[in-house]
This record gives sequence, C-alpha cells and structure tokens, in this order.
Amino acid sequence: MNPATTTEAAPRHAAAIAALDQTTVHLAGVRLAGEVSDIVGPRSFLHAGPPIQTGDLLGPMRAAAMGALVLEGEAADLNEAGRIIDGGGLELRSAHEAGGLSAAAGVISPSIPVVVARSAGGREAFAPLHEGNDMPLRYGAYGPETLARLRHLATRTAPALDAAISASEPIELTAVQAEGLRRGDECHNRNAATSAAIVLALAPALVRGDGELAAAFLEEVAENNQFFLGFSMAAAKVIGDETHGRAEPGIVTAIAANGRHVGIRVSGCGDRWFTTDAPLGEPRVFEPHTLADACPLMGDSFATEVMGLGALASSAAPALASFLGADPLDAVAKVSEMRGICAGESSRFLIPFEGYRGTPIGIDVTAVCQTGVAPLVNGGFAHRTPGVGMVGAGVVRLPLEPFHEARACLAANTDDKGEVTAWQ
Amino acid sequence: MNPATTTEAAPRHAAAIAALDQTTVHLAGVRLAGEVSDIVGPRSFLHAGPPIQTGDLLGPMRAAAMGALVLEGEAADLNEAGRIIDGGGLELRSAHEAGGLSAAAGVISPSIPVVVARSAGGREAFAPLHEGNDMPLRYGAYGPETLARLRHLATRTAPALDAAISASEPIELTAVQAEGLRRGDECHNRNAATSAAIVLALAPALVRGDGELAAAFLEEVAENNQFFLGFSMAAAKVIGDETHGRAEPGIVTAIAANGRHVGIRVSGCGDRWFTTDAPLGEPRVFEPHTLADACPLMGDSFATEVMGLGALASSAAPALASFLGADPLDAVAKVSEMRGICAGESSRFLIPFEGYRGTPIGIDVTAVCQTGVAPLVNGGFAHRTPGVGMVGAGVVRLPLEPFHEARACLAANTDDKGEVTAWQ
Repeated sequence: MNPATTTEAAPRHAAAIAALDQTTVHLAGVRLAGEVSDIVGPRSFLHAGPPIQTGDLLGPMRAAAMGALVLEGEAADLNEAGRIIDGGGLELRSAHEAGGLSAAAGVISPSIPVVVARSAGGREAFAPLHEGNDMPLRYGAYGPETLARLRHLATRTAPALDAAISASEPIELTAVQAEGLRRGDECHNRNAATSAAIVLALAPALVRGDGELAAAFLEEVAENNQFFLGFSMAAAKVIGDETHGRAEPGIVTAIAANGRHVGIRVSGCGDRWFTTDAPLGEPRVFEPHTLADACPLMGDSFATEVMGLGALASSAAPALASFLGADPLDAVAKVSEMRGICAGESSRFLIPFEGYRGTPIGIDVTAVCQTGVAPLVNGGFAHRTPGVGMVGAGVVRLPLEPFHEARACLAANTDDKGEVTAWQ
Repeated sequence: MNPATTTEAAPRHAAAIAALDQTTVHLAGVRLAGEVSDIVGPRSFLHAGPPIQTGDLLGPMRAAAMGALVLEGEAADLNEAGRIIDGGGLELRSAHEAGGLSAAAGVISPSIPVVVARSAGGREAFAPLHEGNDMPLRYGAYGPETLARLRHLATRTAPALDAAISASEPIELTAVQAEGLRRGDECHNRNAATSAAIVLALAPALVRGDGELAAAFLEEVAENNQFFLGFSMAAAKVIGDETHGRAEPGIVTAIAANGRHVGIRVSGCGDRWFTTDAPLGEPRVFEPHTLADACPLMGDSFATEVMGLGALASSAAPALASFLGADPLDAVAKVSEMRGICAGESSRFLIPFEGYRGTPIGIDVTAVCQTGVAPLVNGGFAHRTPGVGMVGAGVVRLPLEPFHEARACLAANTDDKGEVTAWQ
C-alpha cells in the first residue's frame, strides 16, 4: 500500500462501491440476439439462471424453448420441437455465458430482439426487449399469437427502435432509472413511469422514421407498463459485470434462477455459481390460480437487485406493494434490512421518501452470513403448465446456502479474524 | 327527510364528499379561449384570482396583459399595449367568471389555447395549455420568443392536440391524476409522470395526423414536466364548480390569488370571494433571485388543492420536496394536518405510502376556523419585474381571515350549537 495513503483508511469494499455507484450505462441499440452473440444459433439458445440440463427444464421454460424452435423455423410445430429437445438436438446455455440476461422462463433464440446497453468504458450487455404482458414467451406461452408478436418485434419494432436510438441523443439508462425512483418505480417489477419515459425519449426519432409503424407501436406500448424492464436489466448486467471485474472479493454480482436452482455469483470467485433449490416464497397468486400452480423462482432480472434497485429500492415504489401482495408501509423497513447486508449506499439512486437517502448497493456475502439476513428480490412466477403464463408475483427471500458456500470459497482470502481481506 | 333513511345518520357533508369523490372528468378538447368563452375578446382578457382593477395589477400580470395585447394584434408593441391598459382600454375579468382558470401571472386572451375538461354530467371548464418553462407568459414574460411560442401553440399545436383528442379513446383526467399519485406526482407542482402519460395517450393519434408536427411536439414536450398542469387544473375546476353547486354550505370550492389578494369561494355563499392580502410565505427562491424579488401568491391552480391534490397529496410526491424547499419526511405530517380540516377522504386519489389511504377532500370552513389550521397550497412565484419569469416555489399556508369571513357569511345557516347545518 502506498504510504502516502495510509493515514486515511480506505473504506471497506471501496472498489465495489465505486463500480456499482459510478458506472454510467447508456442505451446502445436494440438488435436481434443472433447478431449480438456468437453462441446463439438456430439450435443454441440462452436461458435464465445458472446452467441447467434440458432434461431438467420446468414446464414453462421447456415450452419457451419449443416455441422458439418453431419461431426459428427449426421445427414445423410444437410436437416436432419437443422431439428435438428430447433427442438432444437443442443446446441451452445460461445467458450469462453470452454476456446477457434472459427473462423469467423465456429463452433467447437468434431472432429474439434484445436491448443492448453499454458503459462509458465500453462494456456491453443485453437483455430481451419486453414482449408485452399478454401470453408472453417469457412465462412459457408458445401459441401462434405469442410467436406472431415475436416475429413482429423482430422484423418491425426492433429495427425501428434501433434506428431511433441511433438518431436520438444518447440516453443514459442509469439516469432514467434514477428519475424512475422519483416516479414510483423500483425498475424491476414496477416500470410504469420509466416505460413512458423511454418511449417518449425515442418517440420523436421513431415518428420521423416510419410514421404508421410508430403510431401502432405507441398504441401497443401504452398498454405495457413493464416495457422498460429489458432496458433496466441490460443496464444492470453491465453494472454487475463491471463490479465483478473490479470489486474486492465477496460482493454479489449476479442473482439468477432457472426454476430448479437459484444461484449467485460473487466477486473473487470467478464464474462459479453458488446454487441451491430455487425458492417459491409466498407470492401473491392471481386468481383463479393457486400456489401449487406456480413454478419456483426463475429469471435473470434479479440483476436489478444487484445494482441496488428492485426490492432494495422498495421504499421508492410503494405502489408496487399491492401487486406483490406486500404492505407499502413495510417498504422502508425492508430496505433498512437490506442496508444491513450491503457494503454501501448509492449516491445516484435516491429514495425521496427516505429523505433522498441512497439505495443500498453491494450485497456483501460476509454480512449476509454473519447476520443470517438473506437478500430480498422481487419476482414474477410462471404457471407450471406450458402455455398458461404468469400466475403470481411476490417478494422472495433468497436461501442462505449459496452465501455460505460462497463464503467457504472466499476462505482462502480471509485473514485470521475471519474477515474477507479486500486487497489481496 | 325520508323516514326510511333516518335509521342511518347521513354523514356530515355527504353531498360535498360525493361531488368531490365521484365526479369523473374527461378531456374534451384543446381550443382557443376565444372559441370557448363569450366574454373573452380582443380587449377583454381573463386573469387568475379574485377580480382586480387594472390599476392594481402587479408587474408580471400587467406584463402578461401587455404581451397578450401584442399577441392579439391590438397593440403594435409593448409601449402601445401599456398605453391601452393605462387608458382603460382593456377589460380584465376573473377567469372564474368565464368558467375557467388562468395560470399564475398569466392572462387569457382569445388566441390562448385552453384545455377543456368535461364531467360525465356535461359540466365544462377550461385552463391554459401549458406553455413550457422557458420565459412563459404566465410568469410575466412578454418578449418576442414568448409570443412566438404562443402563436405556434395556437395555430399548430392546439389544433393538432384537439384533433388527436377527437380521434382517441376518451381520456379520463381524474384517472390519470389517480395513477399520477402512484407515480410520484401531486398533479399541481409536480406533473412529471402525468405529463408523460397524457402525451403518450395522445401520441398515436397525433402521429397519424401531421407526423413532422407530432415529432417536433414530442421533442419539445419531453422537456416540459409540467405539461399536464393545464389538464389537471381544468379537471379541478370542473370538480370545484360541481361541488359548489351540490355541496352543503361551508366547503371551499375555489382558492385563487392575483398577487394583491388571495380569495376563497365557499359553498352556500354564492359567487362571493372572501379575500385578504395575498401571502408570500417562505418559498425556495432560485438563485440569483432573492425573496424580495418575488410577487406574493398568484394563480388559479390551487383548484387542485380544492379537489384533494397538490399540497393535500404531498405524501404521494416526496420528490417534489426539494423543488419546494421542503423536507420529504414532513409530507405525511402535512397531509395529516390537512385531514384535520377536511370533511372526508378520497376513495380514488390514494396515497401508496400511506397504505393507499385517500387524500383529504372537502376543506371545511368550520373546521379551519375551529382549529385555526389554514390550508396549505403548493405555489410558484413570479418576479416582480415584468419579463423576468419564475423566481421560486414553495408550500404556502393560506391566511385565516377569508375563512373567518366565510364563516360569518354562513352564520345565517348555523344552528344553536354554532355548527353549520348541512341540509338547509
């Protein structure tokens, strides 16, 4: 250590906090997954969560893979798609391996449009463009309407959005998220105001492109108050990856689930996933469904919690509580609990109702293990049966096991007091 | 009273609460004031607040009147406009006399575009379409850019918006306001999310009209996070007037100020204004201005407080606090204080952070007098010097005098316990 700096103790996890707090992310484009990732191909798709064998796929994720095989023209129908999967003809990899995220039970095939986000330093990541809420692939729908909408997204909407992005002033996604917290969004399960904001930001250039296409898009997207989610996730993945590369050991840089397993990635532990059985929690289940209908946790969108949004910003989005079956009056307490396991606070993601206090950032594996307090995440739940769709939403507490495993992995980097040393 | 209903005591102020709580208001159009009101003419303008003599006009309101005379072609320049006013050649009436509202220091001349709102029962009211925040007429700016923008609004934007409204599905303004509270707006001094919402609602039809005009409008309006204010005010005026006509005596149905005087109108007291000197309060003043630069309270936008929004919904809009120089942590206490002087609670304007409790509605003159707690309103302040613009914003407590005067007026309707009787 430089003697000149020893008079001031460097704050614990300073590099992690800097990466989480200061990485600005801009919108780079909306492209097809096949153009963005080399490992996405006609029979090579991406899924959410830690790696999973095709034989282990739960109903809705298998359904999404079947639908995507038909979408790509690899299968004439869903039956043939099922046979391709059962015969080992489809390769499925964790989206994280491709530098992106997938959504819930959905898969990413070459013609799925993805939002591409980029840091000031040039790091890119992607996440699926939101399909809408009526029978989406990401909750295991695979019927003709679902595939027709995806085709329209790929052939019409995505190119128009990409051209509009190129023609517009740069859009800082992290700034849209920060303003979102002032507009009642937590930028994971509530994106009502941020969806309107990103659409308005792109609208002038969209309209100057194909006017009738723009009008139809504006009409459809007005119904989709989660449209921003893909943008938020892409930004979150950039920041999670940036933090993974720069943080001291022991900071959670990814949280993801595939319905079988939930996993975390931790700085200092490389690409390893620490996993356990995916939890279900006690979500609010939409009638006429029951809790027994719901698959356990799925999705990569918990990247937003990694960056200090989602459940870690609950007190900015009290109106989300009724959707999640939670009490808005508990929101500050929830965030306060998360502060106890985080290494710092954001200086840009400010919660007006907490006197503009920053959201907690940098989930600290050591703090989780020492306190026994596991992170909360906001989540949506898919029906176990293919083709049914979303059945519920809720705040879910992650299991502690992956954190204890990660701590064991970090043990090689601990000092004699059991603290993870920061600068090895 | 019908004997069949005497077993349940009718709630106090039931008719007022019903009018305030259940009057739904839709967007009817955007038109020029001269088309909407017979009493608006080339030399007959409307102003905010209780009636005022032209000789008593404060700087910015006089400046707005001068600018409007040039806008209408009645004066070749501002000097001539001043001479017209000084020579008694301009008639100025309270906008309330025309069934509308004016904004801050602004005036309404025939070619000023106004938002027209309409209740389900057919009651209409209007308020100026928001000009933008760069040197607007409503804060006493009267230069060429200000007038050019108003001309563009009148000749291009207003007709396009009106056509889009006709071509779109009906837009319920009261529903936009209710959703606004879930998105951090109080729909008076903060309209960031509601502005985006109303623009998005009209965008498809706008784009299907003149595409390039639509693109330019979408570009400009993205900078204007108060665009919804005129829509919110027009809805508020409909509800204030509906309540005035239906409420039991003693409910505040208008709050307005002209810089000299602030006044209230009260159900049961006809068209009479109860007035006193306009307050200034302790607003946050934008640098480089000082408090001495600011005119006392002006404007008709306190109609939003009458309907249970604005300061009465502070706890829905914590992000407004920094703009107003207030503490977001005080917001619930402020609303709680207002609950003590209101006759009821809204069942549709719900504050997520208060567990979806409704905003207080129906400011009760008797309760104000008995408690000594005067209503709070959110306000913006104009520079005393013509042409300078907005210099500050703040939460202002109304003076008590008008409420005591109103109570004296209501005395003819009181019983021997000093309570205002509700059903005379």
